[in-house]
Amino acid sequence: MSKKAVVLLSGGLDSATALAIAQSRGFEVYAITFAYGQRHAIEIEAARKVAAAAKVARHIVLPIDLRVFGGSALTDDIAVPKGRDEAEMASAIPVTYVPARNTIFLSFAMAWAEVLDSRDIFIGVNALDYSGYPDCRPEFVAAFQHMANLATKAAVEDSAAGVGAPHLTIHAPLIDFSKADIVAKGLALGVDFALTRSCYDPSPDGFACGECDSCRLRLKGFATAGAIDPAPYRKTS
Amino acid sequence: MSKKAVVLLSGGLDSATALAIAQSRGFEVYAITFAYGQRHAIEIEAARKVAAAAKVARHIVLPIDLRVFGGSALTDDIAVPKGRDEAEMASAIPVTYVPARNTIFLSFAMAWAEVLDSRDIFIGVNALDYSGYPDCRPEFVAAFQHMANLATKAAVEDSAAGVGAPHLTIHAPLIDFSKADIVAKGLALGVDFALTRSCYDPSPDGFACGECDSCRLRLKGFATAGAIDPAPYRKTS
Repeated sequence: MSKKAVVLLSGGLDSATALAIAQSRGFEVYAITFAYGQRHAIEIEAARKVAAAAKVARHIVLPIDLRVFGGSALTDDIAVPKGRDEAEMASAIPVTYVPARNTIFLSFAMAWAEVLDSRDIFIGVNALDYSGYPDCRPEFVAAFQHMANLATKAAVEDSAAGVGAPHLTIHAPLIDFSKADIVAKGLALGVDFALTRSCYDPSPDGFACGECDSCRLRLKGFATAGAIDPAPYRKTS
Repeated sequence: MSKKAVVLLSGGLDSATALAIAQSRGFEVYAITFAYGQRHAIEIEAARKVAAAAKVARHIVLPIDLRVFGGSALTDDIAVPKGRDEAEMASAIPVTYVPARNTIFLSFAMAWAEVLDSRDIFIGVNALDYSGYPDCRPEFVAAFQHMANLATKAAVEDSAAGVGAPHLTIHAPLIDFSKADIVAKGLALGVDFALTRSCYDPSPDGFACGECDSCRLRLKGFATAGAIDPAPYRKTS
């Protein structure tokens, strides 16, 4: 029987690639997607398509209402910034940051991993093209893993039994990748990027804006990788 | 203006006391309760009453469906153990353990604290009478705080500005308390324990069973503190 891994799947290209990497390493994938009140809910449909195409063992879409707290352009009526270059993106943590999002997502993944008796969680964060989010950095991932290994029943039982290695590993296989690296890796693993969506501000019929930070990083990634982004854009500039 | 604190409020006696301690330290309290599919949903009504009695600034009840993962007697059709003594309670992590529960709860509290610009979270865990839950131990609380201070925008900005102390503090003021200490402290601070509920298996009309681990620890705590538990029990033994 193959080992089980829980994979955080957003519907964007990073998590689709992280999922493919988990499968390439022999894991049976349990994918989880959060419906957290994001304005770009079309991502959730993309996640369903990616999960189906990858033939995952199970895909859960979990509603959690982060709008109750407010504080982000991705869940509130704050305008999504457009047309920024990379220096502008890197200058400050952007208004599209959702407070504690990755911490919350990883906490739920930890709960599911424990019930599945899985010791592996995959998250598609990357620190290079990361657009300024604090919870996409390697030191955050390491600190979460340390905390997780003190928090769960299985980890505590392993520790009592004298097992040395961490019970639970948070894999962030894209952490050092540029967007171009991610595109190249995904293409090499057969990811169908036409199914993925990254735009922070898509039109209701699913066309990407081409101008938000996420679109610009994605388009540059494809260009640098020498590939064509198969996702639909409403702008061709 | 007083400082804001986010307080995890379950409706039990521990979190009601933690809330009173936060107020006694001068914090304006923002209380959060999770409707996570627990069988003892009467706790949520208790939390509302405790929050109202304490005149908190705001009380959020957030639905999150932990039943989707399964794995606990508190959310599934697994029998709640009854009539165990403390040696039996301490012998293993009990079936009432909900995977990653405190990690998930603290993650949401962290999100709300960030939006409120609060630097303080209170959780009513205690390690002595803790009934074997790994995520009630001091090392877990410390690891969560460390992770939180790498995860949030405000913490990262503080760090960039050269501020040395942790941005966010996870207060666990009951961590070294026995149940009797908690009862005594709550009574001293004027907590109305008649509003609180602790039973893992209450009757539909709100009477506690008196026999589950939580009831037994609570009753012993009141007895040791020389006080009478004002909550209703369906059994008088």
